[in-house]
Amino acid sequence: MKNQKAWHEVGLREALNAIEKQECSAVDVINACFDRIEAREPVVGAWQYRLTREEYLSHYRQHQGFYEQSLLKGLPVGIKDIIDTADMPTEMGSPIHQGREPVNDASCVGLIRQAGGIVLGKTVTTEFAYFKPGKTANPRDLQRTPGGSSSGSAAAVADAMVPVALGSQTAASVIRPAAYCGAAGYVGTRGEFSLRGVQPLAQSLDSLGILARHAEDIDLMRAILLRNSRANGPEINARPTRIAICPGHLVGETDSAMEHAIERLEALLQAEGVETTRLDQAAGLSELVEHHQTIMAYEVARNLVEESAQLDQLSAPLLDLIDKGLQMERSEYLRALQCVDKARSDLWARHDKVDAVLAPAAPGVAPLGLGKTGAPHMSRPWQVMGLPVVTLPGLTDQQGLPLGIQLAGRMHEDQKLLDMARWLETLLTGA
Amino acid sequence: MKNQKAWHEVGLREALNAIEKQECSAVDVINACFDRIEAREPVVGAWQYRLTREEYLSHYRQHQGFYEQSLLKGLPVGIKDIIDTADMPTEMGSPIHQGREPVNDASCVGLIRQAGGIVLGKTVTTEFAYFKPGKTANPRDLQRTPGGSSSGSAAAVADAMVPVALGSQTAASVIRPAAYCGAAGYVGTRGEFSLRGVQPLAQSLDSLGILARHAEDIDLMRAILLRNSRANGPEINARPTRIAICPGHLVGETDSAMEHAIERLEALLQAEGVETTRLDQAAGLSELVEHHQTIMAYEVARNLVEESAQLDQLSAPLLDLIDKGLQMERSEYLRALQCVDKARSDLWARHDKVDAVLAPAAPGVAPLGLGKTGAPHMSRPWQVMGLPVVTLPGLTDQQGLPLGIQLAGRMHEDQKLLDMARWLETLLTGA
Repeated sequence: MKNQKAWHEVGLREALNAIEKQECSAVDVINACFDRIEAREPVVGAWQYRLTREEYLSHYRQHQGFYEQSLLKGLPVGIKDIIDTADMPTEMGSPIHQGREPVNDASCVGLIRQAGGIVLGKTVTTEFAYFKPGKTANPRDLQRTPGGSSSGSAAAVADAMVPVALGSQTAASVIRPAAYCGAAGYVGTRGEFSLRGVQPLAQSLDSLGILARHAEDIDLMRAILLRNSRANGPEINARPTRIAICPGHLVGETDSAMEHAIERLEALLQAEGVETTRLDQAAGLSELVEHHQTIMAYEVARNLVEESAQLDQLSAPLLDLIDKGLQMERSEYLRALQCVDKARSDLWARHDKVDAVLAPAAPGVAPLGLGKTGAPHMSRPWQVMGLPVVTLPGLTDQQGLPLGIQLAGRMHEDQKLLDMARWLETLLTGA
Repeated sequence: MKNQKAWHEVGLREALNAIEKQECSAVDVINACFDRIEAREPVVGAWQYRLTREEYLSHYRQHQGFYEQSLLKGLPVGIKDIIDTADMPTEMGSPIHQGREPVNDASCVGLIRQAGGIVLGKTVTTEFAYFKPGKTANPRDLQRTPGGSSSGSAAAVADAMVPVALGSQTAASVIRPAAYCGAAGYVGTRGEFSLRGVQPLAQSLDSLGILARHAEDIDLMRAILLRNSRANGPEINARPTRIAICPGHLVGETDSAMEHAIERLEALLQAEGVETTRLDQAAGLSELVEHHQTIMAYEVARNLVEESAQLDQLSAPLLDLIDKGLQMERSEYLRALQCVDKARSDLWARHDKVDAVLAPAAPGVAPLGLGKTGAPHMSRPWQVMGLPVVTLPGLTDQQGLPLGIQLAGRMHEDQKLLDMARWLETLLTGA
């Protein structure tokens, strides 16, 4: 019976369809989300700031006519606390910005509000979207890190507190937490979305991201962020023709469980008639990991200006990064930028008929311990090249912990990538 | 006698040297700037908000020890009112943001403050750095437009109210006003500087810019914005080996006075032993003008989100731009991005030994009338390709009005471009 459904557990599109068909009301979904938050937030810690159920419903009822006519029907959205909101503090995970109240909404927040989404709250970010963790635990195993820096967004979505949340990625900040927590995650091509009001960390690397339960939900949110009038467009599950497999060891340290998961998936793809090829050393992925680190250090030191003068308010890893960036010769930074441009064109020249690259989203399952957010190297090559990336849940290790994989596409071919992701998702969930 | 000098008229480096040699004090320069502002601001209208002399000097004296030890010695800087300042309103030239008080300084502002610059005030910008003019007049002829959108920064620097100011460019917003007012202007390679706190208009086009009296002053400010420890580096005036001349008609409508000025300069360069070549139709510059317009419309419509809902608060040209962007097929936008990438690599492949392109900075002198800011097409090709550009004063028409030229370099070769600009400046001023 549909009425028995736990409405917080369904995806965004499924919830919207159910509301459309009057199988439930928006308030049913909202209440289910708040029930879940009340039950789980004390142990998961996904939220930096949030509306109470009363505040949320009172706002909803005040504007009920608008929400009923809207695309998102007043359903809740989580916003990473590095993204400005005019009605809630935006603290960037740092004591320096405690209580900071931005004057304006980020444009991505404005677009979600205009589409009828309600910002339920701000999700925990690591310090300035870098390494120092916040209070969030991994909802699949509270002893493990949720990953960073979009820790709260990934945990809130994976734990069914909200159907969708925004994150941002400079190194691995959407893909890794999504993979560790078992959510779907997407990072747009660099430049794909307006970053107005998304606090910058490194201008050559920063990208906006979406976390959701299903690829189709990401697709819908992306259309909203692009003001694409075809946000209710056709259902497309596109089987890729050719996929390049990236074994984890080409990028860096990888657990054997992850290497096996990628091999399993490679076999699955072949069984479905997808042609596969393999990336090799020539792709220079481990060098791209280094170039990413070079570019990030140089640029972070020139973005966190006021903050870098407040030494006692910054974590040791962030101080090290800023110091590295300040000491760096500019020629080293420029050389890294050049090498990345060349690596990107070489990659697609060598693999000109490949639709996407399949790679581990992280070295393995989420590590034990909440003091660190896990290694980011699996994302650095694609991020430094500015490619669009999707991670999907479905694979697990023997304990049932998520082993996320990622699909990286060509620049600005985000729509094709998401169409392929929807197909891959059905394969992964055996649907 | 040095003591007789009008200290507001000298360049930034010259003033700093004079302070160093105790030919004058920082307070002498500051007072000269305020004298000039008091005399001229009523007719020029360069400032949206500014400190009074008393406020400025009281702040200076409170922190005199810091300023005396600093690189910029407490000298005044103008900041375009599209760039966030924590201690002054940032209104973006729009009634929508009247009285808006940002929580934080933009990182470029923070870097200038850390180097000992004092923000004298916010300079007039057109509405959201687009077309609708503010109150500023051209200091060379008050009946003429100062150009836009960095109207106040260009007028304030050209009229000797401050030695240096920051601007930003999405289409022609630094180069054109600098050229019209007779200032030196520089736009960095896209991505060169942190844009944290610089209000975005179009993410594929926005660049930070510097306006000053001389190329060496731009060089100094750029080093500060890059946290480059060699801000007091060697004097370099590098003669270019090969320059490609871009006749204005390749880009669009050009006055004959401007075409002649470029030809005169071409002959001057040849006389100095610089090899010259000419761009031709194959460079596709008029197509780049169109691609720029396409990309700008698409992206502006996705950056000005809250604002685009306030129809009665926006000018007709801005509404048209947003409407164009919202109606546009995404495929048209993506095609424009692709064509630009190809045009940039083709340009340098065809002219692989060329150090820079010399082109008109505007179609001619500043047009009469304050209702429009002049045509921006001369900047669109270089801006859409993300190239660094410098404009220099020196050439004039028969009435003595400035005819600005610009030099466009390769991406990330900003330092080389500024070194060449310093050489070209000596040529233009006949020094």
